Amino acid sequence: MDIERFNKQIEFIVEIDKMKQILRNTILMDASRKENSAEHTWHMAVGAMVLSEYSNESSLDMLKVFKMILLHDIVEIDAGDTFAYGNVNLLEIAEKEKKAADRIFGLLPHDQANQLKNIWNEYENAETPEAKFAQAMDSFMPILHNYKTSGLQWQRLGVTREKVLSRNRRIENGSRFLWSFIEGIVNDAVEKGFLKP
Amino acid sequence: MDIERFNKQIEFIVEIDKMKQILRNTILMDASRKENSAEHTWHMAVGAMVLSEYSNESSLDMLKVFKMILLHDIVEIDAGDTFAYGNVNLLEIAEKEKKAADRIFGLLPHDQANQLKNIWNEYENAETPEAKFAQAMDSFMPILHNYKTSGLQWQRLGVTREKVLSRNRRIENGSRFLWSFIEGIVNDAVEKGFLKP
Repeated sequence: MDIERFNKQIEFIVEIDKMKQILRNTILMDASRKENSAEHTWHMAVGAMVLSEYSNESSLDMLKVFKMILLHDIVEIDAGDTFAYGNVNLLEIAEKEKKAADRIFGLLPHDQANQLKNIWNEYENAETPEAKFAQAMDSFMPILHNYKTSGLQWQRLGVTREKVLSRNRRIENGSRFLWSFIEGIVNDAVEKGFLKP
Repeated sequence: MDIERFNKQIEFIVEIDKMKQILRNTILMDASRKENSAEHTWHMAVGAMVLSEYSNESSLDMLKVFKMILLHDIVEIDAGDTFAYGNVNLLEIAEKEKKAADRIFGLLPHDQANQLKNIWNEYENAETPEAKFAQAMDSFMPILHNYKTSGLQWQRLGVTREKVLSRNRRIENGSRFLWSFIEGIVNDAVEKGFLKP
């Protein structure tokens, strides 16, 4: 048994415990507190399990989808969570996240570091059906949270209908059906006064 | 599109948000607060991804392992978290959890409810290689947390070496290697005074 290899794997597992401390701009559905990135990831993975039949593709490699989802936010340990409706420098964030991926996945043994970084890269590039569906779920979940909390964060942060629709359009790349559902609840949210027109 | 089916799926996704509120008897590795079941599930899934090579079986269906892990604690929404070192009525808990599985998975469309309940049952029965490995990870993670927090919860709750070893023996069914690692850190924890002999 290669104990050095095993120690690196344990070091990685210990390091990523920090993801439980990364707070997102999403509020739990009972409106009690902000959600963290570890919880979000779990919820998004179960969401993907339940809704995969709505992918634009007739079949998805769900093992790959789960791996992508489980790993997609680990870079936030160094790079922080990016607020979907903020004014952000996307190039700067991409650079920070790339460095974070190198450092954090780099804690693992070389072969495994490469494997996991490749999965993360595939997710980021959003070109494969699996990455498109996983990214769709990443955008789908917080909108559902906002809708279920009567637009709590949309209101606090002055988000408009136009912004929700333009920033989350990638949902359509993964699932036209989920996108049409989102358009429906966004319009309903405006009607109910949860979201600025 | 079957909108009734979709509405049931959304209802399930909304319901399981409650898992983020189930506090466990495990403390985050920085000792700041208790962990909840959603965070634990995410961490355990990534742990399984990284450590699957140590399974007693030469090959595991990792898609099944991930599904089992993602779903394994959802019953806690109704049944609560069971403390590994408490004096509990196992039959009573099993009964409660079975009812919880019926209600919560039962929110889904019939075919999907059955699928997910079958995965959860397979995990609970701990007979297949995938279930054994997933259960091993469920026991492995909190011991690592306790070790990394200098036995914070072991000390608070007066847990002994004997109890840790007897209650977590199922790790060996999934991975003899991980079990030997756990025996090592448990002995080290006793030497360092983190755990009662």
